Amino acid sequence: MTKSREVHLVARPNGLPAVTDFEIVDSQVADPTDGEVLVENLYMSVDPAMRPRLTNGYELHEPMSGTAIGRVVRSRTKDLAVGDLVMSRLGFREYFTARPDQLVKLDTPDGLPITVHMHALGGTGFTAYGGLLKIAQLQPDDKVFVSTAAGAVGSVAVQIAKIHGCWVVGSTGSAEKARWLAEEVGIDAVINYKEAPIRRGLRSVAPEGIDVYFDNVGGDHLDAALASMNTLGRVAVCGMISGYNEPGARTTVHNLANIIYGRITLRGFTAADFPEMRPAFLREMSQWLREGRVVYRETVLEGIESAPRALIGLFEGINVGKMLVRLAD
Amino acid sequence: MTKSREVHLVARPNGLPAVTDFEIVDSQVADPTDGEVLVENLYMSVDPAMRPRLTNGYELHEPMSGTAIGRVVRSRTKDLAVGDLVMSRLGFREYFTARPDQLVKLDTPDGLPITVHMHALGGTGFTAYGGLLKIAQLQPDDKVFVSTAAGAVGSVAVQIAKIHGCWVVGSTGSAEKARWLAEEVGIDAVINYKEAPIRRGLRSVAPEGIDVYFDNVGGDHLDAALASMNTLGRVAVCGMISGYNEPGARTTVHNLANIIYGRITLRGFTAADFPEMRPAFLREMSQWLREGRVVYRETVLEGIESAPRALIGLFEGINVGKMLVRLAD
Repeated sequence: MTKSREVHLVARPNGLPAVTDFEIVDSQVADPTDGEVLVENLYMSVDPAMRPRLTNGYELHEPMSGTAIGRVVRSRTKDLAVGDLVMSRLGFREYFTARPDQLVKLDTPDGLPITVHMHALGGTGFTAYGGLLKIAQLQPDDKVFVSTAAGAVGSVAVQIAKIHGCWVVGSTGSAEKARWLAEEVGIDAVINYKEAPIRRGLRSVAPEGIDVYFDNVGGDHLDAALASMNTLGRVAVCGMISGYNEPGARTTVHNLANIIYGRITLRGFTAADFPEMRPAFLREMSQWLREGRVVYRETVLEGIESAPRALIGLFEGINVGKMLVRLAD
Repeated sequence: MTKSREVHLVARPNGLPAVTDFEIVDSQVADPTDGEVLVENLYMSVDPAMRPRLTNGYELHEPMSGTAIGRVVRSRTKDLAVGDLVMSRLGFREYFTARPDQLVKLDTPDGLPITVHMHALGGTGFTAYGGLLKIAQLQPDDKVFVSTAAGAVGSVAVQIAKIHGCWVVGSTGSAEKARWLAEEVGIDAVINYKEAPIRRGLRSVAPEGIDVYFDNVGGDHLDAALASMNTLGRVAVCGMISGYNEPGARTTVHNLANIIYGRITLRGFTAADFPEMRPAFLREMSQWLREGRVVYRETVLEGIESAPRALIGLFEGINVGKMLVRLAD
């Protein structure tokens, strides 16, 4: 038996989640049986898309599911050796046992830290890649608007669009993030939506309109994009964080009628829409990361007990880039 | 010179248009010069999509543009003969002169009245055809929801979906229209949205959800459709009549976040999205009309002076099927 701790949801939040909606629970993990491994988690990924599942999706008093990277510490299968790094979705906990078919073994590309598998080279990066290239059908002369442009998905979307030759404007909610986007990410224009209404800001920095909107926000950002969208524009809807703390995850949009004469397509998507793109993504993204053409930031909180604060912090904007929780080295 | 009358917009309506926003103006039409014809209009088409143009699009104190069918009464070109029927978009007026390249000569299929060119075999029918087959990518096992199902576009959309083997539910605002849809159009289920909230009605008649929504309404109808939409569902957005009398033609939608995990596509469109489908449409639709597989209704008001009332009536629901104004026989 191995002593472990896990994160449970114990109450369904109404609006912004509170730390009291979660509990850190002590547990005992059984030894691996034949064909199993024991994994010690190193990093857990915290993501805005977890918020709707707090209302509807996660069981109460069970380990919350979520992506983690761990290290094999005991093995009773020849498929995985002690020391191997594995990615899992088996819950927010320090230790667990699993069969190899429940895990993805990580081959870390030369010179890249393992945490890139949690963001730029992982789910958030792949979401940005497929969302732009397949869902939004990105073209080199597109003018592209990305919301939450300093976030884990947004910042990768900005850089993929730049690599493809597009003009890119992003929105963010702080002067510090705006500076990072301008100085390090190389965005063409940035709007701090806390300083000016997003609609007016977008109109003024993109007077010729936009062709593609990569939406992480919904609500006023989507309305602004629809008001600035050129004919045959495309909206890849990745998230609508503006509604995640509202009852029913509802976000209110007024300008949808613009899509008729503009002949605009809005498409909601998840990574399930483009599994065939994964090999090309891994090849291109690991090269871009090695060459420094894609940069990123991480916010790492320490210890499993900080997981609730990490999740709540996403909606308060305390993170820069990908929010992670470190459990062990 | 020929005495004529024409319909002018004289004030931009705020909300529902009023008859005082329009004026019937006497005019004199010059004789046709070499290469021109003089046309007497027989029918004018009145359409909900004209409403946004009253706010932004139509000039004040000019003949309002719109589709009409007329007959050549004098000809100074060998391309058109006296008695030929022609379709034009040259304005709401009794007489006008034009060159043949401004007109489309009508070949009326055997046994069909000429007014079908104003609806089922014209723009509204073509919009329904391309909207379902190309924009919504209709499949035979789709469950299809059509709003304003008794309208000129909606009723044709319902019947095309039925011909393709789909299960079809429609919404309408009167018991009489609901009866027509059930008894003559052969719809599978119909919701009278004045008797029950559309969301609850749709949920109850389509418990397995819908795959395609052909939207003519926006607002609460689109919210209801999004709440009932199956994974990979498609929304062909043809119109959003719920917003046409609101400032900025705005219609409010709350359930858009559903498109993310449902991986749903919303696509606004006009007939400009599928010109290549016109020959197939004309061939199929004239056959369906001759065989009685597509039925239709018309509401015909008499005389150019009734044009403003016809347009306003669209938003009061006084029409059954296509709204037309007859100017001459």
